[in-house]
Amino acid sequence: MSIDDAIPIGEGSRFGGPQSVGLVQARTFTFAAPPDELPLECDRRLGPVTLAYETYGRLSPRCDNAVLILHALSGDAHAAGYHAPDDAKPGWWDLFIGPGKAFDTERYFVVCSNILGGCKGSTGPSSVNPATGRPYGLDFPVVTIGDMVRAQRRLADHLGVERWLSMSGGSMGGFQALEWAVRYPDRVASAIPIATSARLGAQAIAFDEVGRQAIMADPAWRGGDYYGREAPWAGLAIARMIGHITYLSDARMHAKFGRRLQDGDRLAYDFRTEFQVESYLKYQGDAFVRRFDANSYLYITKAMDYFDLAGAHGSLVAAFEKVRAEMLVISISSDWLFPTPQAKEIVRALKACGVPTTFLELDSSHGHDAFLLPSEPLAAAIAAFLENVQRRVREGGADGGRQP
Amino acid sequence: MSIDDAIPIGEGSRFGGPQSVGLVQARTFTFAAPPDELPLECDRRLGPVTLAYETYGRLSPRCDNAVLILHALSGDAHAAGYHAPDDAKPGWWDLFIGPGKAFDTERYFVVCSNILGGCKGSTGPSSVNPATGRPYGLDFPVVTIGDMVRAQRRLADHLGVERWLSMSGGSMGGFQALEWAVRYPDRVASAIPIATSARLGAQAIAFDEVGRQAIMADPAWRGGDYYGREAPWAGLAIARMIGHITYLSDARMHAKFGRRLQDGDRLAYDFRTEFQVESYLKYQGDAFVRRFDANSYLYITKAMDYFDLAGAHGSLVAAFEKVRAEMLVISISSDWLFPTPQAKEIVRALKACGVPTTFLELDSSHGHDAFLLPSEPLAAAIAAFLENVQRRVREGGADGGRQP
Repeated sequence: MSIDDAIPIGEGSRFGGPQSVGLVQARTFTFAAPPDELPLECDRRLGPVTLAYETYGRLSPRCDNAVLILHALSGDAHAAGYHAPDDAKPGWWDLFIGPGKAFDTERYFVVCSNILGGCKGSTGPSSVNPATGRPYGLDFPVVTIGDMVRAQRRLADHLGVERWLSMSGGSMGGFQALEWAVRYPDRVASAIPIATSARLGAQAIAFDEVGRQAIMADPAWRGGDYYGREAPWAGLAIARMIGHITYLSDARMHAKFGRRLQDGDRLAYDFRTEFQVESYLKYQGDAFVRRFDANSYLYITKAMDYFDLAGAHGSLVAAFEKVRAEMLVISISSDWLFPTPQAKEIVRALKACGVPTTFLELDSSHGHDAFLLPSEPLAAAIAAFLENVQRRVREGGADGGRQP
Repeated sequence: MSIDDAIPIGEGSRFGGPQSVGLVQARTFTFAAPPDELPLECDRRLGPVTLAYETYGRLSPRCDNAVLILHALSGDAHAAGYHAPDDAKPGWWDLFIGPGKAFDTERYFVVCSNILGGCKGSTGPSSVNPATGRPYGLDFPVVTIGDMVRAQRRLADHLGVERWLSMSGGSMGGFQALEWAVRYPDRVASAIPIATSARLGAQAIAFDEVGRQAIMADPAWRGGDYYGREAPWAGLAIARMIGHITYLSDARMHAKFGRRLQDGDRLAYDFRTEFQVESYLKYQGDAFVRRFDANSYLYITKAMDYFDLAGAHGSLVAAFEKVRAEMLVISISSDWLFPTPQAKEIVRALKACGVPTTFLELDSSHGHDAFLLPSEPLAAAIAAFLENVQRRVREGGADGGRQP
């Protein structure tokens, strides 16, 4: 996922503008202190666990307006607003979160937390291992999407959210939304998975693995034990560049860069950055290494590769059998990393289980990253779905109107 | 291009079998010795130049049955037959070259040479620079598809081939076939470009660039000056793995590997090779570094990125205006690196110039690499096209029946 491109448009989003949540503060919640560590799917235990999170809007007295935002591979808890008035950019989904926006903070209490395994304030491989006093590195256990969600459940308890009105996220954020609806059916009234699937195919795993190989081949990686030294920036930049190619559609990349050169129209006949698309990728790679931990990249892509609802439950229909959430499944027409047929597979299985499901294929040429870009249809679909769910929940349709 | 998968089937192809060209020998041709160096498009001069080549079949007394085979990124001059009776595999296109095969060596004199810039016997960055007595490394000039073809023209002169009956190659081999037909219209009676395009788009350039970045980020690369030391194997393996993902269709990769694990069905919860698709990629990467030079990978991908017939001539129609060859343009339905619309662009421009052009979209789920795999329809189309061209040429249709 590219959050670097997610630049908001319009006056309202600006710091202090009427559609901005304004200044926000990162918080942390720490739990699972020994001896009550969080049990993980790998059969190891982890604790204490800290989740960094932010909230926008206010929890209603009946605690029935909470919406959980779930971030993708390179995201964090800072989904909206600004940490300081002079921040160059707002949170990564500011286009969709704020007063009067799709996730309307006048109506909803919006929460976003950095995932378990991340490097943006939550416990991950760069955190200090209390057993050694040094960063975990590869001693950090391999966590799964299920583990991330179970950590988020503890945060929900902490915040007093018994049942989420809704939850949404793109890409790996969609994995988490699906996992929530399956794992905690009583705690999810609705979910909006976007540009996602119920499991990665071989090609997506292959791209992830080459990225991991690039990191682990970097001598600076040192088996994951590089903290306090030079990090494997070169390898991480390669991994990020590979990712970026997959986040854009071929057509979009061609429209954006074509075969244009950096400097005029003379070929350089050397190996410096020459085509504009090369320069873009290099910029994305270099920008990424300044803000992301290479080990977290390994752990999070591994969690994505492991995610497999059908594999874990026998079939996708079996996985969705207990789901009590209303679903709005959204795919992007030009997304070749999480193509529409994978979303339709989810929709078919949900419908087979009688889950009230709406499907929207967003018509966009931007590829996988389109959910991070301005889109009236996307915003409108989310807003309408949330309003309907809220009305039904308040009318007492506790299970989202599901047909038994 | 993956030649590792190109394993012939059937008895005939085996060493000594009736459809094998049998034992073959690599030859070399050296020319352009100083002061008569080969002038290059970058305005530098190179010499002496050696091309490694092989021939199969016999040149007819009238020298009118010669067919040039043009290899792709990782190919070489060894297109058919065996170098030794105990070779594990024959040449990379043995499926299509031999007695009774598509390129029937009973009828045609088949030639294949390693490209300029390669590392399989032809002059390239790993060759000794006569000015220094040491390998060129990055002192080797950046060569283009046009330079490769001009070197091949010198080989044609040497072999006494005034006019090729035909020429064919997939991927970058197709670039060379198109360049030949444009640059030397009088010397090409027909051409069969396969799974190719008239220029790479931004996405393909991006994949090439990330591969190059992976090589150049490897500390062992040392600015290209690694000969006699440890080579940048890790970087080259990453580049090769990226390439391999693009050579297979998503569907084919999924059918071949799915989400299957190497060892049973238990997740390992570590970062060792685990999914079968990871193991496949790693194998391909490791096998490649044993047989290929990293600098050649840089130079050859750069030549591919530079290739742009429309850019060089103003438009594709302008490029094809002087073409006098009959053309058989072949695309592969599941090829997402060189998709069918790019082949159709070539076909449209050829037809606009009155060039007799046949177009075939090969229905295959294998992706870009399909031209290296057994295919009756592909073999039949090539065989029929060649027979027709040969008949017309022998009947005196010197310009391949082109309508003026």
